[in-house]
Amino acid sequence: MMNDEKILQEKISLLEDKLNIRERLIHALELVNTTLDLNTVLEMLMTIANQLIDTEASSILLMDEEKGQLYFTAATGTKKDEIKKIYLAKGEGIAGWVAEHGQPLHIADVSKDKRFSKKSDRTTGFITRSILAVPLKIEDKLIGVVEVVNKKKGEKFTSEDIELLQTLSTTGALAIQKARLYQDLSDLFISAVRAIADAIEAKDPYTRGHCERMRHFSLMIAEELNLSEKEKRNVELSALLHDVGKIGVPERILLKDGKLTQEEFEEIKKHPVIGAEILAEIKQLKEVIPGVKYHHERYDGKGYPEGLNGENIPLIARIMAVTDAYDAMTSDRPYRKGLSKEIADKELVRLKGQQFDPKCVDAFLQNYAKNAKYSPKR
Amino acid sequence: MMNDEKILQEKISLLEDKLNIRERLIHALELVNTTLDLNTVLEMLMTIANQLIDTEASSILLMDEEKGQLYFTAATGTKKDEIKKIYLAKGEGIAGWVAEHGQPLHIADVSKDKRFSKKSDRTTGFITRSILAVPLKIEDKLIGVVEVVNKKKGEKFTSEDIELLQTLSTTGALAIQKARLYQDLSDLFISAVRAIADAIEAKDPYTRGHCERMRHFSLMIAEELNLSEKEKRNVELSALLHDVGKIGVPERILLKDGKLTQEEFEEIKKHPVIGAEILAEIKQLKEVIPGVKYHHERYDGKGYPEGLNGENIPLIARIMAVTDAYDAMTSDRPYRKGLSKEIADKELVRLKGQQFDPKCVDAFLQNYAKNAKYSPKR
Repeated sequence: MMNDEKILQEKISLLEDKLNIRERLIHALELVNTTLDLNTVLEMLMTIANQLIDTEASSILLMDEEKGQLYFTAATGTKKDEIKKIYLAKGEGIAGWVAEHGQPLHIADVSKDKRFSKKSDRTTGFITRSILAVPLKIEDKLIGVVEVVNKKKGEKFTSEDIELLQTLSTTGALAIQKARLYQDLSDLFISAVRAIADAIEAKDPYTRGHCERMRHFSLMIAEELNLSEKEKRNVELSALLHDVGKIGVPERILLKDGKLTQEEFEEIKKHPVIGAEILAEIKQLKEVIPGVKYHHERYDGKGYPEGLNGENIPLIARIMAVTDAYDAMTSDRPYRKGLSKEIADKELVRLKGQQFDPKCVDAFLQNYAKNAKYSPKR
Repeated sequence: MMNDEKILQEKISLLEDKLNIRERLIHALELVNTTLDLNTVLEMLMTIANQLIDTEASSILLMDEEKGQLYFTAATGTKKDEIKKIYLAKGEGIAGWVAEHGQPLHIADVSKDKRFSKKSDRTTGFITRSILAVPLKIEDKLIGVVEVVNKKKGEKFTSEDIELLQTLSTTGALAIQKARLYQDLSDLFISAVRAIADAIEAKDPYTRGHCERMRHFSLMIAEELNLSEKEKRNVELSALLHDVGKIGVPERILLKDGKLTQEEFEEIKKHPVIGAEILAEIKQLKEVIPGVKYHHERYDGKGYPEGLNGENIPLIARIMAVTDAYDAMTSDRPYRKGLSKEIADKELVRLKGQQFDPKCVDAFLQNYAKNAKYSPKR
């Protein structure tokens, strides 16, 4: 009887362990699903795998379809950065074996297994003893491999460990796929905006690359002003789209060689408002529109279309005003060469408080100086 | 002793039940995370909730932020469609109470609880006996309520039921949020494409609405040809973007009132290739480009830019050719009134095999006839 009771007690303890680990797994699956950002998903997956299986390190390799190679995209543990440089061919090393066969592999002592590749240990200086690797699959398609390395208590992975990592990998693969879909759609949108900006610029060879440079300069100011990620995104889109209204300005005026008449100039001055109208129907761009509509306002109130002044001009438009003018000054035109950086900088400073928001000019020059320090050869 | 053993056996049985239900929950969480399509997420959530808690029906209400109301977005069980028409104010009914208090509520006998609103039963004819409702939250923000109704075995919900539904709801809320983010980004992209199409059209008042009508007509053909969802999406984008290359054609030619010279016509004929070039950098639009580049090819090989013929013209472009011409024929121009549908239809038929792919013409006319039957007042 006592013996039976002991067996039952052991069974209870086992079940409780299993239950506990499932509770943790459920919580982990929730975490993995909180975000659509690929890097965050990968980091979470690794951290969770490490904790659940109780290992020293973990890593994720993703399949590069074109090259047919696995590349390390993320790794926990001490040697995180080095490992990211390593590629494995399909079939190479443990991860390569798992990718080729599409099934898990656990090895208690890698020194005794000839499938183990020393490539990553050589690069990182890390010493791998034991390894458990599981494929990341979407239905039957392999998208990568997740590995946990060096089990802390004892060297053997249990069947429970394998099962756990497989469950985590199923959800992990889905989370990776969704993050990629989202990223892809986001890239598509930005590419489309850029393509349109390019097409509008292409009408006038002297403005080529203007939007792209303005995007770059505007992000420098946004960075320096510590704007949020969302605000930075708006700044970026606003720079790319600031001249979209030029679609609505007659070409004979837009591309006129000689001096514009007063009437023609009034036509040109409509482009910020036309741009705002083009974007008006797009509810997700509500916060981008002010940058388009007011990028020709001046800090002293002498700009257009509304003659707003100072802080009454939305910040995003005050940023556009500086970078639009700066790029115009430093670009070549058919009738003059572009100003040097030194002279253009002086112009910005001279016009602080008149044409430009002093804060935006300062931020631009400060950030420029910093970047110049980092990369003197620019 | 026997007594102790019995207790232990019972405990084991209980733990096994718990473990089993967690295994099912883990599988359920995987399912909920397979997709970024909102409707599929909602359907899955309900089906799973129903199965896990073993109830007769389930439903999801989402919060309409602007109106401050909960609306039924999905419901299993017999009376699915009727229930979708019902709104509840915050605080109204069980779901309203849960939304207001942000915590679960279970009621074994709704006839004895005055918080229960008879609104939905009255509309649907369903008889609610017991109910368990749990908030859907993202961090602390309420986005909706999930309800399971009429527990099959016995009328009481257990604390285990509540816990399960809460766990499911945490993941469910995240899945709903991600599906919405994706939908939002997708809408943003389509809106941007449409805004650009509109802006290009706005140059010529006689083409206003052309892209939108062409999109509609092209989808009719795609529908009739049983194209996949992905192909339909490409058809849609191709219709909206088919004339994007007109950005690159000089306005004095594009908008010329009189007859075009041969040289000018050659300039106009560049717009499909310019359009393809504008889109060339966008890798996600690879399958849209043929519709843009070849929408002026003719089935008999007499079109441009390449003089392709028959099935050598990509299907997407053969669709564009029909709908572009059809909308041009039926639209008013400064110098003529648009053709009636009857005469335009005859033109399409007459030009089958010459200008147009016969299959596309037939599909268009067939689908038109069907839709006319469904909505005689169009």
